[in-house]
Amino acid sequence: MKFGGTSVADLDRIRNAAHHVRREVEAGYDVAVVVSAMAGRTNELVELVERVSPMYDAREYDAVVSSGENVTAGLMALTLQEMDVPARSWQGWQVPMVTDSSHGVARIRSIDTSHMEQKFGEGLHAVIAGFQGISPEGRITTLGRGGSDTSAVAFAAALGAERCDIYTDVDGVYTTDPRITGRARRLDRIAYEEMLELASLGAKVLQTRSVELAMRYKVRLLVRSSFENGPGTLVCDEEEIVESKVVNGIAFQRDEAKITLIGIADKPGVAAAIFGPLAEAGVVVDMIVQNISEDGLTDMTFSCPVADVPRATRALEAAERTHSIGYRDIVTDTEVAKVSIVGIGMRSHSGVAQKMFATLAAEGINIKVITTSEIKVSVLIDRRYLELAVRALHDAFDLQDAA
Amino acid sequence: MKFGGTSVADLDRIRNAAHHVRREVEAGYDVAVVVSAMAGRTNELVELVERVSPMYDAREYDAVVSSGENVTAGLMALTLQEMDVPARSWQGWQVPMVTDSSHGVARIRSIDTSHMEQKFGEGLHAVIAGFQGISPEGRITTLGRGGSDTSAVAFAAALGAERCDIYTDVDGVYTTDPRITGRARRLDRIAYEEMLELASLGAKVLQTRSVELAMRYKVRLLVRSSFENGPGTLVCDEEEIVESKVVNGIAFQRDEAKITLIGIADKPGVAAAIFGPLAEAGVVVDMIVQNISEDGLTDMTFSCPVADVPRATRALEAAERTHSIGYRDIVTDTEVAKVSIVGIGMRSHSGVAQKMFATLAAEGINIKVITTSEIKVSVLIDRRYLELAVRALHDAFDLQDAA
Repeated sequence: MKFGGTSVADLDRIRNAAHHVRREVEAGYDVAVVVSAMAGRTNELVELVERVSPMYDAREYDAVVSSGENVTAGLMALTLQEMDVPARSWQGWQVPMVTDSSHGVARIRSIDTSHMEQKFGEGLHAVIAGFQGISPEGRITTLGRGGSDTSAVAFAAALGAERCDIYTDVDGVYTTDPRITGRARRLDRIAYEEMLELASLGAKVLQTRSVELAMRYKVRLLVRSSFENGPGTLVCDEEEIVESKVVNGIAFQRDEAKITLIGIADKPGVAAAIFGPLAEAGVVVDMIVQNISEDGLTDMTFSCPVADVPRATRALEAAERTHSIGYRDIVTDTEVAKVSIVGIGMRSHSGVAQKMFATLAAEGINIKVITTSEIKVSVLIDRRYLELAVRALHDAFDLQDAA
Repeated sequence: MKFGGTSVADLDRIRNAAHHVRREVEAGYDVAVVVSAMAGRTNELVELVERVSPMYDAREYDAVVSSGENVTAGLMALTLQEMDVPARSWQGWQVPMVTDSSHGVARIRSIDTSHMEQKFGEGLHAVIAGFQGISPEGRITTLGRGGSDTSAVAFAAALGAERCDIYTDVDGVYTTDPRITGRARRLDRIAYEEMLELASLGAKVLQTRSVELAMRYKVRLLVRSSFENGPGTLVCDEEEIVESKVVNGIAFQRDEAKITLIGIADKPGVAAAIFGPLAEAGVVVDMIVQNISEDGLTDMTFSCPVADVPRATRALEAAERTHSIGYRDIVTDTEVAKVSIVGIGMRSHSGVAQKMFATLAAEGINIKVITTSEIKVSVLIDRRYLELAVRALHDAFDLQDAA
C-alpha cells in the first residue's frame, strides 16, 4: 500500500490512511506500507538545498531531502500501533534497498527483504520510507520526484505481493481528464502498456518508471482514492482484461510547441546535426516529422514543451553559425497541443487512426503533425481546439460506456 | 566543533557557523563538525509524535526526531562546499556510532572512526548529525535532549581531537549568571569537576553527561560564542589550571521547595520508608537533613523542585495511610531557592563554608538547609533573598577578579 504526500499531509490524514491499512490487515494480509513525505515538505527541503547551493552536491541533496519520508514513516508506524496494528518503520538503508550511485535519480539494484519478511513472521507489518535507498558506497540516494511510486512497486515485486495499492487523491484512472468532459469514465482495468502511454502522455496518476517496473515484474497495481471507498482501477497484464475497447483513453499535453526548420539539405547526417545540439541543450523533443524532399531540400518539424523553445532556438542558431545544419528559416508555433488516443485493441483493429482523423476533420480541426505507435495515435493541433478535440474523440470512440 | 540549535537556526546562521569552521580549516586542522537540528525543529517533531501517540514506541520516536539533525548536517556540508571547504555529512548509522538500545536516552558504546579518518586523509572534513546513533539491532537511537554536546565530546575522544569547541549563544562560562550581577566574569579556564557541579546545579551551558564524558576521556572543551569572537572558556583538567581561586562559580536554582516531616521515629528504616515512595513517584529529591533526636522522635527535611511538591505530598500521605512512616505533620515551604559555591580550591582551603555562612548572616539571610561536597557548599534560603545572596557571595569571594 502506497500513500502519496496529500494522503499523509497531516496527522488526521495519516490516521485516515492507517484505517485503510488496518482494513487490509484485518482481511488477513501482511502489509508493507510505503509513504511519501507530508505534502509540501520535500519542496521545502529542496528549496533549502537550492538556496544554500544552486549547483549542489547531489549526495548531500539526497541526505537532506530524504528526511521527509523518515518522519512520515515513523508517524505512520506509531499511528498503526495506536490502532493495535503491530508495525515498525524501515528507512531505505535499513532494509536495505540498494540503488546505483546516481544521486537524485538513482535506479534500484536490489532489495533484500529477508529481515522484513522475518518481522512479518513475527506479526509486524512494515512501514517503508519511500523515495530513498542506499548506494553501494553507503550514502543515501533518492529515486527522483514521484519516486515513492517506484519504491512501492519495487517492494511489491521483491516481496511477491498479491497487489500494490496506490492510494492517491483521485479514485482511479479515467478515460480522460474529467475536467474536460463530464463523460469521462473511471476504468475498471487498464493494461500496463496503455497506462504507460497515458502516464508518459501527461496523465499524472502514476510515475512512468513505476508502471514500467510493474509491467516488467507483473505487479498488479490498484490505483484508488485515500478519501473515498471505491473499486479503483487495476493496472494489470492485458491477459487479465477479458474485453477491451479499441481505444481506452485519451491523453493530452496542453503546452506544446512546434518548431520547423525550412530548407535543410535532404542528406544523411542532417537529423543528427539537428537533434544532437538539441539533446545537449536539454530540449525534450517529442514528435518528429520530415517532409517530402523537393530539389534536394526538405523541412524538418519537431515538437517540444513550450518552456524548451528558447533553449531550442538558441541551440539551433548556434549550430547554424558553425554551418553544421544549414537551414533557410526557423518557424516556431507555440500555440499547439498534443492529443493522443491509446488502446491495446488497436493492434487487432484497423481504421482507428482514420476514424480519429475523420472525427477531428468533422470538427474543422486541422492536424499539424501525426505520430503513431502500436497502441496509440498522437496528433498536434491548435491549442484552442484541445478541449473540443478531446470531447469529440471521447464520443466518437464511445469511451463513456464500458466494454 | 559543535553548533547548537540557535547557532544553526537558519541558513544565515549556518553560513556564520561555517565561517568558524573555515577559519579552523585554514589554521590547518582536520575538522569534525557536530550539528544540532535547526532551533525549534526537534520540538516540532516531538510534538507530532506525542500527538499521534502519548505513550509512544521510543524506537519510532527516535526515527522521527533524529531527522532534524540529518537536515542540518546536509545543509552544513553544502554550505562548507560553497566556501571551498571539502566536506561530507555523516548520519549516526553511517559512521557508525553504536549505542545501547535505550531508545530516547541511549548511551554510546563505540564509535568507529576508521572510515571518517580515511576521508580526512582525502582532505574531506566531516559534518556529523548530532544526538543520534544506531543500536546493535540496527535501529536509530537518540541520546536524550541536549545530546549533541555528548555526541561532540564522544567524537572528539574517538578521533583524539586536540580540542572540542562548543559553539553556543553565550561567550563562555561565567562566575555566575550575569543577569544577577554585573560583576559576573567569564572564566578563562574551569576544571571538569567544577563545570560538572555548575552544570548539574543549573548553569545551562553544557549537558552534564557531556562534561562527565569529557572528564573521563580528558577532552578539552572550549565553550565559545557563535556570534562574537572571543577566547571562550576552556573546560579542562585541573592540572592545566595553574592558579585557581578557592571559589570559581556561584550556581543557583530558583524554584526549590522544602518539605519537613515532623515527629517521625528516629529508628533504622525510617529514611527508606520516606524516600522509597518518593523515588517511585518520580520526585527529584536533592538535599536531605535529619534533625537531632529528642525523646526518640525527630524531623526529616528534604528539598525538591517546586513542581514536584504535589506528587511528593501525595506519595507521603499515601505511605502514612498504610502506617509505613508515622509522622505528626508535613510542613511545606515552596518559597525557597538553592545557592551553591563551587571551587576545586576548597579541597586545600578551610574556612570556605564558614565565610559563606558569615556573608549570608551579615545580609540577614537565614540558612534553612546545608549540604556540602568536596568542592561545593550549597544552602537553601528564602527565595526573595536569592539575588542578594548571589551578589554578596560574588563580592565576598572576589569573583569579579581573575586569579
